[in-house]
Amino acid sequence: MRIGIIGGGAIGLLFASHLSEKHRVTLYTHTEDQASIINRDGIRLIEDGESRLLTGIISKGLDEGISGEDLLIVAVKQYHLPQVLPWINGIQVPLLFLQNGFGHISYLKRLQSPAIYLGVVEHGAMKHDGNTVEHTGLGITRIASFKGELEQLSLVNGRIDHFPFKKSEDYHSMLMDKLVVNAVINPLTAILEVENGGLITNAFYYQLFQDLFEEISDILEVRNKTESFEHVKSVCMATAENRSSMLKDLENGRRTEIDAILGHVLSEAKSKGKSDCLTSSLYRMVKGKESQGG
Amino acid sequence: MRIGIIGGGAIGLLFASHLSEKHRVTLYTHTEDQASIINRDGIRLIEDGESRLLTGIISKGLDEGISGEDLLIVAVKQYHLPQVLPWINGIQVPLLFLQNGFGHISYLKRLQSPAIYLGVVEHGAMKHDGNTVEHTGLGITRIASFKGELEQLSLVNGRIDHFPFKKSEDYHSMLMDKLVVNAVINPLTAILEVENGGLITNAFYYQLFQDLFEEISDILEVRNKTESFEHVKSVCMATAENRSSMLKDLENGRRTEIDAILGHVLSEAKSKGKSDCLTSSLYRMVKGKESQGG
Repeated sequence: MRIGIIGGGAIGLLFASHLSEKHRVTLYTHTEDQASIINRDGIRLIEDGESRLLTGIISKGLDEGISGEDLLIVAVKQYHLPQVLPWINGIQVPLLFLQNGFGHISYLKRLQSPAIYLGVVEHGAMKHDGNTVEHTGLGITRIASFKGELEQLSLVNGRIDHFPFKKSEDYHSMLMDKLVVNAVINPLTAILEVENGGLITNAFYYQLFQDLFEEISDILEVRNKTESFEHVKSVCMATAENRSSMLKDLENGRRTEIDAILGHVLSEAKSKGKSDCLTSSLYRMVKGKESQGG
Repeated sequence: MRIGIIGGGAIGLLFASHLSEKHRVTLYTHTEDQASIINRDGIRLIEDGESRLLTGIISKGLDEGISGEDLLIVAVKQYHLPQVLPWINGIQVPLLFLQNGFGHISYLKRLQSPAIYLGVVEHGAMKHDGNTVEHTGLGITRIASFKGELEQLSLVNGRIDHFPFKKSEDYHSMLMDKLVVNAVINPLTAILEVENGGLITNAFYYQLFQDLFEEISDILEVRNKTESFEHVKSVCMATAENRSSMLKDLENGRRTEIDAILGHVLSEAKSKGKSDCLTSSLYRMVKGKESQGG
């Protein structure tokens, strides 16, 4: 299959390198520079301490336009979607969106493609440079349909080593589960400057962890709170050594995904008239640190 | 006058060096080492970029006992008071306590001295080493009576350059004003890792600053909120370049005064059944960082 991936960040590079084993991959990058480096040197994938060079991948600047793909995977951050949409608005090929939160859902209705899928990435990935990505945590990619038949997406049926896909029935609950995990773990680790495991092992941080889960699960009206809490906790422990993406973003003076994550929770709280003291405080702390430039 | 000062921290060293200009000062330290360094080399005071060596000061380890003083100034942190009290319990000389918060008030009733005074230090001071202190911000020391006549405390009548004293009528409101300032500025600057001025100049931090003041002034039932808010804000701007003591304590892996400051606010909230969301969250953040050892 001919797969186009939009976005040369950690997730875009991770998907390009793994999918290139079974598919013809074109990676659409924001800058021409990154595209030419990848065309010249390939993509280096670091996995289990070993480094592999993947060459078959073609790369192009997005502004050259998109053509001849059977599937387009949109792997840019939610806040970069507005720059990408003009290129995919009228396109008829199936689309797979990998953004966090719910901010992107409102855009999807405007797209003309008959098949639109949503994905949630549970892999750990770190971009070292323009053509090097490290697979820091083996996870899965959950995929649900927003529009069209999920069965027609051959991606979820084929097998790729170290890169499993899993079907989800309901995109809303799939995105919600990921949102709750991100909304609790990311802001706390970013402000407290600890690895994910610190939220469980430090007794004071664990109280904040519980309080924030309580507030957020109440705002988002999470159905099975006990199960959801245990899920967030298990993710925290499974990734105990990891520094969350939001913590790394602040450490590197980069923009965070706080608006797609806590921003959404806050607008839900507002529309439902629910109390959001801890959520809004953490939102302001992260926005403030972000505006300091790390 | 023969003045004994208990505590060889920043405040103890600052008071010893300034008071030694007009008084016979004995500094009672926790360690014999610090006492012998001060007896050998004196105390170095850095002020306005100039360094002065003050030699006339005698220093002793506290466990040698206290004798022959006309006034005893207790300049240890609130959480070190329990170690000091056995030495001053039965003593009859006037006592001046310089701790933050209200945690020390409960101890005072047990003391036998007929004259007990309370002080609030608005100087900026940084201890460089065992016998070097920098006067980082010229302020005043407010003094009120807890027991006995304030007029009899000659300290508040005499003049010392760069070291003014001011009488306060009511110790409760004097401590309260300082508590509100500390309770708003210290935890926020410690967690956000900014200089005091950052709380005003960063729009997101200023929202947190306002929210925390609102919550704390409500819990402590501050009478004139507008005036009190402007006071906290003016302190923030007057010390814009300073890193708060709590921020410095966390940076250096030292214990903070969070229990004397937010701990008191939380117990007030509990006894009055007031909401304390932001206060308790910041308390947990600081306690958590403290337990990480900075």
